[in-house]
Amino acid sequence: MKFLDEIKFDDKGLIPAVIQDYQNGEILMLAYMNRESLQKTLSSGKTHFWSRSRQKFWLKGESSGHVQEIKEVFIDCDMDTLVFKVDQKVAACHTGYRSCFYRKIEGEELTVFGEKVFEEGDVYKKA
Amino acid sequence: MKFLDEIKFDDKGLIPAVIQDYQNGEILMLAYMNRESLQKTLSSGKTHFWSRSRQKFWLKGESSGHVQEIKEVFIDCDMDTLVFKVDQKVAACHTGYRSCFYRKIEGEELTVFGEKVFEEGDVYKKA
Repeated sequence: MKFLDEIKFDDKGLIPAVIQDYQNGEILMLAYMNRESLQKTLSSGKTHFWSRSRQKFWLKGESSGHVQEIKEVFIDCDMDTLVFKVDQKVAACHTGYRSCFYRKIEGEELTVFGEKVFEEGDVYKKA
Repeated sequence: MKFLDEIKFDDKGLIPAVIQDYQNGEILMLAYMNRESLQKTLSSGKTHFWSRSRQKFWLKGESSGHVQEIKEVFIDCDMDTLVFKVDQKVAACHTGYRSCFYRKIEGEELTVFGEKVFEEGDVYKKA
C-alpha cells in the first residue's frame, strides 16, 4: 500500500490511533500502532495495536471478545495520527466502562460519569 | 491541582490531547500538551499545546484567530490521554479544512472528503 510509506511513525515506530464509536461519535480509547499492527488492522478489518507497556502485538478483544470492527479510517494533515470509526462490541475499556474516557475533569476534581457495562473480574480471568 | 500529579506524561513530558467538536462529535485534531500547556489550557479555557516540531508553547489560534473554547475535559483509565470537547472557531486545520482528518483511507487510496472552510494564504501571512 503506497500511502503506508508516507505515514509518519514516531521515533519508536508508533502512530496514535483514536478509536471512535461509528454510531454516536463517542471517543472510546486511544492506542498505538506500529507498521505491522496497522497493516494487520487494515487487512483484517479489526483493530490491532502495539502495547507499549507489554511490548507486545495485540488484537483488541483477544481476551475479552470485545473486538472493534472497523467502519471507516481517517488520517490527519500531518500523516501522523489515525482515527478509526468502529463498531465496538460490549465495551472498549478493560475497567468495564464503554469508553476509557469515563472521567471528567471539573475544576480540581475528577468525576466519574460513564456507565459500567461489565465487571472486570467476570471478563478477564486471572492468570 | 491534585490530579495533575497523577497524569502520566510520556518520556518527553507530553500527553496527547484529542480535540472533538462539542456539538457534532467530529474529531478535529490531535496535539500534545506538556504540564505547563495543560495548566494554561485549564486555567484559560482555551487550548494551549506544545509543538514538537517547533519546540514551542502554542496557543491554538494565536496566528489565525481559530481558537478552541473548552466545554468539557475527559481523561482516560490510564491517565495518559486527554479529550477536550471544544467550540472550534472557523476551522481546526491549518490547511483550511474544518478537521485535520479530512482524508479517508479506502483500500490503497486516500480520498479527500472534508470541505475547505478557508484558503491557507488568506489566513496565515507569510513571514
